[in-house]
Amino acid sequence: MCLLAVDAGAPLIESPGRRMAEPGAPWPWPGRREERQMTDQNASTTPQGASPSRLMRFGATPGSSRQTLIADRRLCVGPPGNVFVFGGVLFGSALAALEDHLQRPVVWSTIQFLGPVRAEDVLALDIEVPSPGRTISQARVTGRVGDREIFLASAALGVRDEPLDHAWDQAPEVPPPEACETAKLWPHGQEPGTLLETLEMRIVPGAFAEVEPTGSLADSGRTVFWVRARQGLPMDISVLALFGDFTPYALSKALGGGLGGVSLDNTLRVLRRVETDWILCDARIQGIRSGFAHGDIRLFARTGELMAVGGQSMNAWPPRAKA
Amino acid sequence: MCLLAVDAGAPLIESPGRRMAEPGAPWPWPGRREERQMTDQNASTTPQGASPSRLMRFGATPGSSRQTLIADRRLCVGPPGNVFVFGGVLFGSALAALEDHLQRPVVWSTIQFLGPVRAEDVLALDIEVPSPGRTISQARVTGRVGDREIFLASAALGVRDEPLDHAWDQAPEVPPPEACETAKLWPHGQEPGTLLETLEMRIVPGAFAEVEPTGSLADSGRTVFWVRARQGLPMDISVLALFGDFTPYALSKALGGGLGGVSLDNTLRVLRRVETDWILCDARIQGIRSGFAHGDIRLFARTGELMAVGGQSMNAWPPRAKA
Repeated sequence: MCLLAVDAGAPLIESPGRRMAEPGAPWPWPGRREERQMTDQNASTTPQGASPSRLMRFGATPGSSRQTLIADRRLCVGPPGNVFVFGGVLFGSALAALEDHLQRPVVWSTIQFLGPVRAEDVLALDIEVPSPGRTISQARVTGRVGDREIFLASAALGVRDEPLDHAWDQAPEVPPPEACETAKLWPHGQEPGTLLETLEMRIVPGAFAEVEPTGSLADSGRTVFWVRARQGLPMDISVLALFGDFTPYALSKALGGGLGGVSLDNTLRVLRRVETDWILCDARIQGIRSGFAHGDIRLFARTGELMAVGGQSMNAWPPRAKA
Repeated sequence: MCLLAVDAGAPLIESPGRRMAEPGAPWPWPGRREERQMTDQNASTTPQGASPSRLMRFGATPGSSRQTLIADRRLCVGPPGNVFVFGGVLFGSALAALEDHLQRPVVWSTIQFLGPVRAEDVLALDIEVPSPGRTISQARVTGRVGDREIFLASAALGVRDEPLDHAWDQAPEVPPPEACETAKLWPHGQEPGTLLETLEMRIVPGAFAEVEPTGSLADSGRTVFWVRARQGLPMDISVLALFGDFTPYALSKALGGGLGGVSLDNTLRVLRRVETDWILCDARIQGIRSGFAHGDIRLFARTGELMAVGGQSMNAWPPRAKA
């Protein structure tokens, strides 16, 4: 049985009627079984007013190693007539499918992007678990549209019984989002009804403040900013993957403006999940050469806890000198 | 035809009779075709005194998408009776096989480790190229010993015609390796004749100096050190992958001693290759939770150029309180 992936009457991003994980619930895996049942129930009989609790919703046969996702335009970015699913959403869909299937949390994952998913495409996600361990499972997800391979994600999922809990990386001391200026998320106009309408970014003033494109390299490859979904989303692997894909924004700033880059991959290393309205992103570009740039991003909760570290390499398009 | 992977009469790590890439040769891809012929020739008829020019040597049918590697104990680490091929060597073998096959340089790659390769095992590396692009190829390598899957590496290889060349990440200002103290590479004794005998590490004095295990968390998750192969190795993707796998050393320091961790994955993002005797490693552990730690490492040439950025998540074993 393949359930509807998208309930066309409800926004994909909205305040959940019910949270996937109660704030303060014990790590690592609160209510996963329950949540799964809820999701399945919602997907088949979404009542008026009930809301999806996740960025994207799957059509899935419970227990099956295949899930499907219809590429709703609300998951897409791009100018009118050329929209495609945001890379971080594809990554999030792969990781959410893995967590649903294995009932374990993602520790790390890397996705290799091979091609775009266009609006209305049907994405099939096939899961393999080459190493199903007692405490940690190593798994893969292949994404395909028809016969076309879209991505391969490798991942490790699990929890070990170790009490040590420490982050050496600290959040930068910055003003709260309320004291920061709203930033433009994309250099070009977006097709109406697409993903970026539902997201908001605020740039920390000072060294990282938004400036007009300069066309020359920035002194620092670092950019610090707040991000959120305007209507709120419960913390979830798909939300971490979504905002972990914001390193190209730092590339754009580092290069002095322009598009920035297109991801070859995304890597996500998860430390903890904290319910938070805004996420503080600390993104750094390490370097650029031969048309490729490398960068990483740290995602902190509003209260400063390090939640995850992302990284990616990008096909980079430096801004051209103006004629 | 399967050529000898290892010439038992010659060390796998030694000064090359001939360099793969001449220092100062133009990036990105000096002499690859020539080198390939050289390697093939060496592999079949290694003359007395000629040396392998790479960390590991393959048995390969030229043009074939399969290569084989015998797990010489000189590629292994571990205490007597329990040696296995070092993860960074497996990663290096996958990347070297890819570069040989595609004749393009690695931009980024991630390897997922599923199991160990023991001394004398025969590792088969099978290459797929799901996206063979004009300027960039996306590829994968699966490593197997018999029917047992050992790893999957995903990678992008290529060069784009973009002149921009800049690193925002700077090498920390530290004394040269000659002014630093030699460090112990592993907490336990190593089986004689294995990899670590041929490698050397020197710890930068001061905040990152070697200390006796404290059994308590370090203030900083950062460790800065110099590494080299004692007999010198020409800069090569396998050398970058080898030393990119030294993040667990930083974990050991961050945790106050002990083994540190075992890699779930390795990610490598390559900016440039510089002929250098010593490599400066700037490694940081971001955090640890539920038995897993995450960290990254930057590899600089002695002269300060950023060559590559590595990252990994680790199964972490904190030191136990002494009885």
